[in-house]
Amino acid sequence: MTDIFAFAIGRQRSSASGQVLDCYFPAPLMHPAAGLAELIAKQFDHASNAVSAQTVAGFADQLPPGKLREAMALFAETDKPLVSVRLDADEPIASTAEAYLKLHLLSHRLTLPNTLNLDNIFAHLPNVAWTSRGPIAIDELADAITAANLSGEHLEVTSVDKFPRMTNYVVPSGVRIADASRIRLGAYLGDGSTVMHEGFVNFNAGALGPNMIEGRISQGVIIGANTDLGGSSSTMGTLSGGGEIVISLGENCLIGANAGTGIPLGDRCTIAAGLYITAGTPVSILDENGDEVKQAKARELAGGSDMLFIHNVAAGRIECRSNRRAIQLNDQLHAHN
Amino acid sequence: MTDIFAFAIGRQRSSASGQVLDCYFPAPLMHPAAGLAELIAKQFDHASNAVSAQTVAGFADQLPPGKLREAMALFAETDKPLVSVRLDADEPIASTAEAYLKLHLLSHRLTLPNTLNLDNIFAHLPNVAWTSRGPIAIDELADAITAANLSGEHLEVTSVDKFPRMTNYVVPSGVRIADASRIRLGAYLGDGSTVMHEGFVNFNAGALGPNMIEGRISQGVIIGANTDLGGSSSTMGTLSGGGEIVISLGENCLIGANAGTGIPLGDRCTIAAGLYITAGTPVSILDENGDEVKQAKARELAGGSDMLFIHNVAAGRIECRSNRRAIQLNDQLHAHN
Amino acid sequence: MTDIFAFAIGRQRSSASGQVLDCYFPAPLMHPAAGLAELIAKQFDHASNAVSAQTVAGFADQLPPGKLREAMALFAETDKPLVSVRLDADEPIASTAEAYLKLHLLSHRLTLPNTLNLDNIFAHLPNVAWTSRGPIAIDELADAITAANLSGEHLEVTSVDKFPRMTNYVVPSGVRIADASRIRLGAYLGDGSTVMHEGFVNFNAGALGPNMIEGRISQGVIIGANTDLGGSSSTMGTLSGGGEIVISLGENCLIGANAGTGIPLGDRCTIAAGLYITAGTPVSILDENGDEVKQAKARELAGGSDMLFIHNVAAGRIECRSNRRAIQLNDQLHAHN
Repeated sequence: MTDIFAFAIGRQRSSASGQVLDCYFPAPLMHPAAGLAELIAKQFDHASNAVSAQTVAGFADQLPPGKLREAMALFAETDKPLVSVRLDADEPIASTAEAYLKLHLLSHRLTLPNTLNLDNIFAHLPNVAWTSRGPIAIDELADAITAANLSGEHLEVTSVDKFPRMTNYVVPSGVRIADASRIRLGAYLGDGSTVMHEGFVNFNAGALGPNMIEGRISQGVIIGANTDLGGSSSTMGTLSGGGEIVISLGENCLIGANAGTGIPLGDRCTIAAGLYITAGTPVSILDENGDEVKQAKARELAGGSDMLFIHNVAAGRIECRSNRRAIQLNDQLHAHN
Repeated sequence: MTDIFAFAIGRQRSSASGQVLDCYFPAPLMHPAAGLAELIAKQFDHASNAVSAQTVAGFADQLPPGKLREAMALFAETDKPLVSVRLDADEPIASTAEAYLKLHLLSHRLTLPNTLNLDNIFAHLPNVAWTSRGPIAIDELADAITAANLSGEHLEVTSVDKFPRMTNYVVPSGVRIADASRIRLGAYLGDGSTVMHEGFVNFNAGALGPNMIEGRISQGVIIGANTDLGGSSSTMGTLSGGGEIVISLGENCLIGANAGTGIPLGDRCTIAAGLYITAGTPVSILDENGDEVKQAKARELAGGSDMLFIHNVAAGRIECRSNRRAIQLNDQLHAHN
Repeated sequence: MTDIFAFAIGRQRSSASGQVLDCYFPAPLMHPAAGLAELIAKQFDHASNAVSAQTVAGFADQLPPGKLREAMALFAETDKPLVSVRLDADEPIASTAEAYLKLHLLSHRLTLPNTLNLDNIFAHLPNVAWTSRGPIAIDELADAITAANLSGEHLEVTSVDKFPRMTNYVVPSGVRIADASRIRLGAYLGDGSTVMHEGFVNFNAGALGPNMIEGRISQGVIIGANTDLGGSSSTMGTLSGGGEIVISLGENCLIGANAGTGIPLGDRCTIAAGLYITAGTPVSILDENGDEVKQAKARELAGGSDMLFIHNVAAGRIECRSNRRAIQLNDQLHAHN
């Protein structure tokens, strides 16, 4: 029996000198069913390989009607370089095409953040100038800018990064993204996610939906249904100093504007606007009468539910209270995503 | 006597399947004078309607010289779909074209935020992919991305939102906008407003000018002349959890960097950098000698003037002092908008 | 002996009415060596002047092989308006071309922030609409938007500002810039600088590299090697209310997420996430046993090294401790810029 972890055929763009810059996979697959897996295994080799439009045409003819067949039929008629990526298991990333496939799997919602082996992803993603003409290799950029200037055209360089913007590759259903420059390919945005202008979602991070996201979802962080991030709120990431705790937020949480968390939270938790909780923050735990039951470091509360964190300035303490305030979201906001 | 609340003729863009995506109104009117109102009433029906270039040509011929006539003369020669919107009163929004007209009225500074009936605006604004080729319907986007990829062109998807960027429709006089992705159509930016990269202005929100805006102006919020918002500062909006208090700031206020307010403020108020005042924040009110006169929740101070809010860490209190520090803005910054 | 402070030949773009909008200098020079300086002085006048492609061709022929000759050879064949700027000394800015030359000198890393005479720069930089077709004069923008709409093309207005985005002019080696709209021309980004989506670097400001920048580097601010700015962190600028202290950060510092500083710091300093230190913040200085040695205003600590600032809520004080925690950056992040 043929077992395939993931598969896709895509367009691969390269620099003048032959460096692979990016790949676009319109219809990636994970764990294809047995019949399809055999079809793939017969015609495409393991790992990433150049593939001809002719081969894709033959493959398309054997596919059942659907999204994959439609995409492959279009690819069968292009003269642009194509690539197939067949991964038999979820191993460390070994090529740029494999890195792009895994990023597509996440943004197509085929798998959740923190479920893929992303080892070596930084090494296999080239740093690229993303421009109004598509990706340009860094060492070819200065000449391209000069040529555009002298020809009277305009070349807009929108970013210089290893990761492109998600929306140029895939826009999952039921989302709003107010500023696409803030969502990297590899972000997971569930149905009903609204990312406002101040929101940010890194690769391998995301929101299960529905969510109102006006803060930053760092690499590795996941937030649950109906959890909202206020403007400029922060979730510490493992890449940028948050240590080894992977942050996640459960359902119905609210991180206030300009607030932040360095610990994971369960369901129905609130952090008041402007308050930053780090793992080492001393916290006073109050009972339902408001009496202090215990003092603890915030990391001891990691993953707990029904917690409301506020800074009680007069009492000189950060308090963790039982959170009885239901988060009342504006219905209109969530209804019309 | 004919009374017309608002009127405009614009270009309407639609998806392949006929869904209206956006409207562009170069010269919208509010409360046109009697003669013009009669002219409009004779030729255009109430609400939004398709209109031919020929009709627009006839209308243009009857107009006095000016901005409206010039715009209509250009529209008279196009082969693109045109729409007229005539609103006899300020009623709930009933079409996409009406929603766009009201957003234009605000950004053209014909009326202030919170003066228009915007009921049903979310329902009548479709969620659209805003791209380097203009708006594309969400359900036509995936095919457009694939087609662009296979043809070797680049399609940049800059946002997926109900509201487009203001600057693609109108740039009012005397403003600077460092990052246009942060200003929604429907924002009101007064003469002399500078919005830096971290600034943000939602629809139905704005700054009367002159202002230096490096923070976020939420839906419904207005700030007065010479009031400045520091970097990442926050004004709570009614849509996103701020409750029912509509926030406004008077003149000569300063919200410090990374600070925020959940209450409206009058004139000459300052909130120190990093301090977030919510409606429920306990505040100690000091007299001119620095002695505590009273304790109050911040909401009791809503709308007051000459207040300086700081967090006195040693005293264990958020203090509200009489604000005697004039905000000294860098003259050069304001002089060269 | 001929002494030349700076020199460049570039393309100059102007509005329909003749206003200079921007200049692009692919290979600017500072303090050219004696032979080259003489060559320049013989053929080009002081200050900024229109120059013909023919003159540039003659100049190019006399140059030694290299980047400058290559660029000039391309410029020699254009029909676009060219400008030469020869500055014999570092005097106040006297034209738009001179302003652009100085901004290029900074972004090309030919000189550090705060080393150039930038007097009058605001007066000589016109406020311009930066669009998908390049710069457009503000008073020609409305017509351009209407014309694009009626012709069925899309005109994207990305900003309305005196300063353009750096990456459309120069991308220095070894940097990553996740969102190019956040870096103004005139920013200095050292080798190994990564500016994430929330990072920002103004003109005449920068990072010596390597750095991870997720916060805001205000005008005049410089940060040293291995200093990292957390998400939404703030450095007060002299233009925006920070007073007369010029902020700089030394090496191996960390400003936590949502934190900020209004004082310069030396090496190995940390400000905890969410804490804003202004010049007037009262601080308790602790010895290695955690005992308070002294109380001071933060400004008295300006420029010091090995300081860790935290808000000790229970003790009711902002503490400055000796910073013994080495900042452990994720190696992968810095290794693959």
